[in-house]
Amino acid sequence: MIIDCHGHYTTAPAGLQTFREDQIAGFKGGIDVPLSALPKISDDQIRDSLENAQLKLQRARGTDLTIFSPRASAMAHHIGNETTSRRWTEGCNDLIHRVVSLYPDNFIGVCQLPQSPGVAPVNSAAELERCVKELGFIGCNLNPDPSGGHWTSPPLTDRHWYPLYEKMVELDVPAMVHVSSSCNPNFHATGAHYINADTTAFMQFLTSDLFADFPRLRFIIPHGGGAVPYHWGRYRGLAQDLKRPRLADYLLKNVFFDTCVYHLPGIELLLKVIPVDNIIFGFRGSMPGSRGSAHRTGRLRNDAEAFELFGNLRCNLPGGLEVGFAFLLVILA
Amino acid sequence: MIIDCHGHYTTAPAGLQTFREDQIAGFKGGIDVPLSALPKISDDQIRDSLENAQLKLQRARGTDLTIFSPRASAMAHHIGNETTSRRWTEGCNDLIHRVVSLYPDNFIGVCQLPQSPGVAPVNSAAELERCVKELGFIGCNLNPDPSGGHWTSPPLTDRHWYPLYEKMVELDVPAMVHVSSSCNPNFHATGAHYINADTTAFMQFLTSDLFADFPRLRFIIPHGGGAVPYHWGRYRGLAQDLKRPRLADYLLKNVFFDTCVYHLPGIELLLKVIPVDNIIFGFRGSMPGSRGSAHRTGRLRNDAEAFELFGNLRCNLPGGLEVGFAFLLVILA
Repeated sequence: MIIDCHGHYTTAPAGLQTFREDQIAGFKGGIDVPLSALPKISDDQIRDSLENAQLKLQRARGTDLTIFSPRASAMAHHIGNETTSRRWTEGCNDLIHRVVSLYPDNFIGVCQLPQSPGVAPVNSAAELERCVKELGFIGCNLNPDPSGGHWTSPPLTDRHWYPLYEKMVELDVPAMVHVSSSCNPNFHATGAHYINADTTAFMQFLTSDLFADFPRLRFIIPHGGGAVPYHWGRYRGLAQDLKRPRLADYLLKNVFFDTCVYHLPGIELLLKVIPVDNIIFGFRGSMPGSRGSAHRTGRLRNDAEAFELFGNLRCNLPGGLEVGFAFLLVILA
Repeated sequence: MIIDCHGHYTTAPAGLQTFREDQIAGFKGGIDVPLSALPKISDDQIRDSLENAQLKLQRARGTDLTIFSPRASAMAHHIGNETTSRRWTEGCNDLIHRVVSLYPDNFIGVCQLPQSPGVAPVNSAAELERCVKELGFIGCNLNPDPSGGHWTSPPLTDRHWYPLYEKMVELDVPAMVHVSSSCNPNFHATGAHYINADTTAFMQFLTSDLFADFPRLRFIIPHGGGAVPYHWGRYRGLAQDLKRPRLADYLLKNVFFDTCVYHLPGIELLLKVIPVDNIIFGFRGSMPGSRGSAHRTGRLRNDAEAFELFGNLRCNLPGGLEVGFAFLLVILA
């Protein structure tokens, strides 16, 4: 079974975005637009949004299941206030649930969280619990920087986040560390902010005792771990300099990387330096809505070399399952 | 001739740090400590600080010349005000000049700039000119985030920076894009802030017309280009998505990467994806004071494989010279 750990619903029916725009305009005008204002989205609209996109690509490439969450760049926790974020999050998560209900064999849900700058992370625990217990989701996307590029929250290793981690452990679900759009002009979202956040989170984990406090807490660092595998020598050295445990003995029990690196030399490096048990297959780079990806460059091809490369990988499903997989990888060589 | 493009004076005599501490204490107490308060540093102290460190390693490894600048993590432009930064910068640069005067065959100077948060970059032009014209320096370290991890300045591509670039072009010197320490608890300095800044700067350059405005402006992105080479497929795709020129046709005429990647797989990836003309040899990882480096892990060894790897590289000296080089690389395999 081939599982893609990193899918976002980038092709959601237009009604969702209409609601979001109304909501943002409302917030600016001092009006709290309720979720009931979300335009009706029919099952057919949902089917149409997927059949010629994610589902077509799933079939063409022979992947079986996509772990599917709302569009990451649209989470935009920095817009509005906590109520804005909560309503938007519920709307997005509910739509993922409808996708999963229509295609239970193809998708499984991961939720967005109703984070907001300056708001305690534990305030996201109820939505996480709703998504896991009522909607059957298996994880969440956790934004280490709800301010959208101003990095005003404490590090992920601060006790600020612990009550939310307690809920994650209680529910036995992992988080993918995933920022959203940037409102800091220094940081292009997918070209800088995403990758920086991945690198930043890893280094926060490296310098802390978080996983001594939460041995069962699990994080996926997406986009191939940001800069980390490329600078693995640096991190190995830093761990030694800082008298931290060896990376393999500590961090890698709780931290996993996806394979969303959009060229073969990067994938090869990832597989060379990161233990196979810590690599989770992600196909994001060739799915709709991915910026700067193989899909967009129009240079996709079946690649026997890449197949061979990935053939012996196991897929560590965030829900805890481990399944062997082999697949025909479509990658930009 | 083998030139190391990325050396910092991490072993400066203690008097320099004493001055800095006095200066910071003074600032807190409302006193502007003048540079005349810098304890006298003798030539012998300077020799002692280098003979068993950088010079010993130069000789052991067969490098000829180190492009040498003040300790990057100590620039700390966020401390104090513009005057604080100016005095500290002048003291640091003067000391580099003394090093270069004592060892003109071994070192050549690159300056720190007296940047300060909220202060126009052009205010650094005079110090740059002094260092180049009077002290014989060949470049500068430019901090894209003088706030130390809060990223409050406009992007490097904003006209905010243009007057300083005019001076760089006039003097025909490049800048290494180099942040300093971080006062944002999210960002470990060498484990996150440095690498993030490298990635961020590259993406800023990618999305702008800066090099159309300044065809002769040159930047070195250190630490192997941050995350960029590992995610080269992403950047190539982003350039295409954003209707930007091909990276090789535009950015790579003005942007160079050093080789400060501290393990062999990372170096191999760098050499595989970045054109050789855009790679500048840097040895930082095995020099004193480097955090998380081969030097610190105590696993240095001569590596014939790495020698072979680097053997055909040319060294693009920031001053504009191009010299072929081959050297015995000491690297963490």
